[in-house]
Amino acid sequence: MAEVIDIEDPTDPRVDDFRDLSNADRRPDLPGRKGLVIAEGVVVVQRMLDSRFAPSALLGVGKRFETLADDLADRDVPYYRASAEVMAQVVGFHLNRGVLAVAPRPAELTVDDVLDGARTVAILEGVNDHENLGSMFRNAAGLGADAVLFGDRCADPLYRRAVRVSMGHVLRVPFAQLPQWPASLDLVRNRGFQLIALTPNPAAVNLATAMTGERVALLLGAEGPGLTEEAMRATDVRARIPMSPGTDSLNVATAAAMAFYERVRTA
Amino acid sequence: MAEVIDIEDPTDPRVDDFRDLSNADRRPDLPGRKGLVIAEGVVVVQRMLDSRFAPSALLGVGKRFETLADDLADRDVPYYRASAEVMAQVVGFHLNRGVLAVAPRPAELTVDDVLDGARTVAILEGVNDHENLGSMFRNAAGLGADAVLFGDRCADPLYRRAVRVSMGHVLRVPFAQLPQWPASLDLVRNRGFQLIALTPNPAAVNLATAMTGERVALLLGAEGPGLTEEAMRATDVRARIPMSPGTDSLNVATAAAMAFYERVRTA
Repeated sequence: MAEVIDIEDPTDPRVDDFRDLSNADRRPDLPGRKGLVIAEGVVVVQRMLDSRFAPSALLGVGKRFETLADDLADRDVPYYRASAEVMAQVVGFHLNRGVLAVAPRPAELTVDDVLDGARTVAILEGVNDHENLGSMFRNAAGLGADAVLFGDRCADPLYRRAVRVSMGHVLRVPFAQLPQWPASLDLVRNRGFQLIALTPNPAAVNLATAMTGERVALLLGAEGPGLTEEAMRATDVRARIPMSPGTDSLNVATAAAMAFYERVRTA
Repeated sequence: MAEVIDIEDPTDPRVDDFRDLSNADRRPDLPGRKGLVIAEGVVVVQRMLDSRFAPSALLGVGKRFETLADDLADRDVPYYRASAEVMAQVVGFHLNRGVLAVAPRPAELTVDDVLDGARTVAILEGVNDHENLGSMFRNAAGLGADAVLFGDRCADPLYRRAVRVSMGHVLRVPFAQLPQWPASLDLVRNRGFQLIALTPNPAAVNLATAMTGERVALLLGAEGPGLTEEAMRATDVRARIPMSPGTDSLNVATAAAMAFYERVRTA
């Protein structure tokens, strides 16, 4: 059972991992930053508890402990119980979700780890917006995509905002970094995946027609620039979502959702 | 040709329609508020110029006037030219898009207006988040949906944030308010539309199977509560997007995109 420890002094060093989140979390990837993973709110904390990210501590109001009691029944982790006011002083802003969990980063998964048994994966290039990244993981989880691979220039999926927008699904949908870009796409192809580049180019093949593989890897670039020509050249086919003329390309998470949907639409 | 008028004094009454936007715009639907429609940035201003929302004035830096010169060539509308600093003082915050256009609200379209010639429409209930509303219009435009109808308890699609997130497509995808909810759904049915309720309920029919009409109206509720039972009962069929167990329902704009995509996927 999680041990409840009351915190009345906001400067208590036992809650240092939760301190001043809006600053400490800004660039968790920089040297000297802790890069801890933060879950906010009951649902996301529950998903963290059910993931490979094992929380080292929780900080929350008493009411949230009651809600989480069953989830924490067999966990040996401290629950720092505080008032909403003390929590706000620790965290640095008022947090209306009432509970946080913090976890260290476990060892990264390898490309082989995440491709094992996968049928549908997304491969991202230049997706550097945390909100788009979070939405993409949420859509991947919802529509049954199995994994996400990062190519070049992507943002950190474990950034606090990405975790929140994903509703905790970045903690559960496995992801890995491709070692070389775009050369490592061969690793994916050699595992039997059809490599499909998504592009708004009207000359590309219709997505529904292009997607013929039993195992499929969907390459997506950032909104605006899209995939680099170099990356597209390393794929098997360039596919487009049928779009109306005179509109912008879809948001990258929405485009991914469409492709994931195409995989499961008759399920 | 638009007339260029230099504004050096931020208190100049000629730019009153652009004043203190973050406050004046908060509830444009309240009595006493102006409820003017604001377009921000070159692309959205161009879409406004190409819409039924005729701008009464523009406010922007000199550089943006040059970019818009062709679009404004045959328009009789003042372009208030100001420095970024003066603009910020008028608007109340720093605006990095450099140009705004303001338009009065034209007469509302009727349900008949927007259904005329339409094949695919979305009907919303309880969608009161401006960002979701904006994304929904962006997706409707991108994927060729023809119109949006508002049922009960929806937010104002012409709110500044909704216009911005839609990338100006709320100004171009026609919309109308249904007079009674859900009784007015009969108006839509009588025009030959199949009424499809989207629900995460696993007992519902698969969307791809359910969607059989030549003309289709997709009902969507807010994230979380979804459609009311009353609204669902007034439809022809309840349809689900195939979702993984243990995940949340999709964001409403993403769910709509999926349904719009289903209509055009082989186009």
